[in-house]
Amino acid sequence: MSRLLRVQNFTVSLDGFGAGEGQALERPFGHADPRELMSWAGATASWPNRTDSGGSRGLDDYFARDFANNIGAEIMGRNKFSPQRGPWENHDWQGWWGEEPPFHTPVFVMTHHLRPSFTLSDTTFHFTDGDPAAVLEQAREAAQGKDVRLGGGATTIREFLDADLVDTMHVAVSPVELGSGVRLWDSPDELRDRFHLEIVPSPSGVTHHLFWRK
Amino acid sequence: MSRLLRVQNFTVSLDGFGAGEGQALERPFGHADPRELMSWAGATASWPNRTDSGGSRGLDDYFARDFANNIGAEIMGRNKFSPQRGPWENHDWQGWWGEEPPFHTPVFVMTHHLRPSFTLSDTTFHFTDGDPAAVLEQAREAAQGKDVRLGGGATTIREFLDADLVDTMHVAVSPVELGSGVRLWDSPDELRDRFHLEIVPSPSGVTHHLFWRK
Repeated sequence: MSRLLRVQNFTVSLDGFGAGEGQALERPFGHADPRELMSWAGATASWPNRTDSGGSRGLDDYFARDFANNIGAEIMGRNKFSPQRGPWENHDWQGWWGEEPPFHTPVFVMTHHLRPSFTLSDTTFHFTDGDPAAVLEQAREAAQGKDVRLGGGATTIREFLDADLVDTMHVAVSPVELGSGVRLWDSPDELRDRFHLEIVPSPSGVTHHLFWRK
Repeated sequence: MSRLLRVQNFTVSLDGFGAGEGQALERPFGHADPRELMSWAGATASWPNRTDSGGSRGLDDYFARDFANNIGAEIMGRNKFSPQRGPWENHDWQGWWGEEPPFHTPVFVMTHHLRPSFTLSDTTFHFTDGDPAAVLEQAREAAQGKDVRLGGGATTIREFLDADLVDTMHVAVSPVELGSGVRLWDSPDELRDRFHLEIVPSPSGVTHHLFWRK
């Protein structure tokens, strides 16, 4: 099997935004409410943050539990990692995810402002200022034969799409409108020239968009 | 997470049969054509028997690749293992799957005719004459904290449903009629009293039925 660069469970609004405007420490998705945007995933049995034994095991759960399936590394943009911009004032910030980040693999954070790698539980964060192709090469090496997940946000996914490096992409379109924010697309049809696309409505109200390279 | 007993990728005809009549060495599914019944899975990139790098990565592929996800053991009926009936004449028969069976875990074959365990590659076949609850206990122990897959056929799945031991079930209903054979159900609605059910049509023509315990 070839090793893939995969977007998994990335969620956008009906109008194509992956996050709202005005990201801040208290608002990691800007004016968007992540509980609303991600409610389809939060309702599943496989949601990593779930603390009870409930949750649905229907269609949405297949996507939620595929998140880590055969993944050996993640690439993310700096704005997924941190609300800060520009040079780091210090290295106290260690991501949004507490002592047990849900990645469980090496994570490559793309930033012009390098800082030392650090490890939380079984996730190690590296900081890299390479272009998408170079970062993908680093992540592939770290993934030891498994696939690499492209974690977002929307701007980072766009960069990898522009460089034609994405192999498969699962985007859940949530039934909310944001009006403004960080845009993934005007329409998923933009990608049909390069990708097969299956559109699968879920009983939960989201619509799963499954892309794979032609 | 609790450990589940899961039916994965079990395929039946529109009229509810998991296999046709007259299973024989040359016809493991009796008068049913497994290539037709299973064509939805065979077209995916993750189909275990695929030898090229093609195949779809749409909805059906999510189900195909979930086959082994967090599975630590399989339980199957004797008729899935072998076309023979009654006492073993010898122990030459080692299953339909050649030197590299697609299970990669311990497999428990339910039969009244015991024989010694044997190993092919990373799959070990055990033979057991316990009732469903006892076999599930054996398989759980072998699965070392992972889930157990209930592999079929239809008669074996019915036995575990009757004993109320199945936690989740994915059944793909294929757009073919068989008229007779080994029946899983008259209608999936039979199970709605005990299970949630989501019905998800796939662009390939099959309809995925996702059950999980209420």
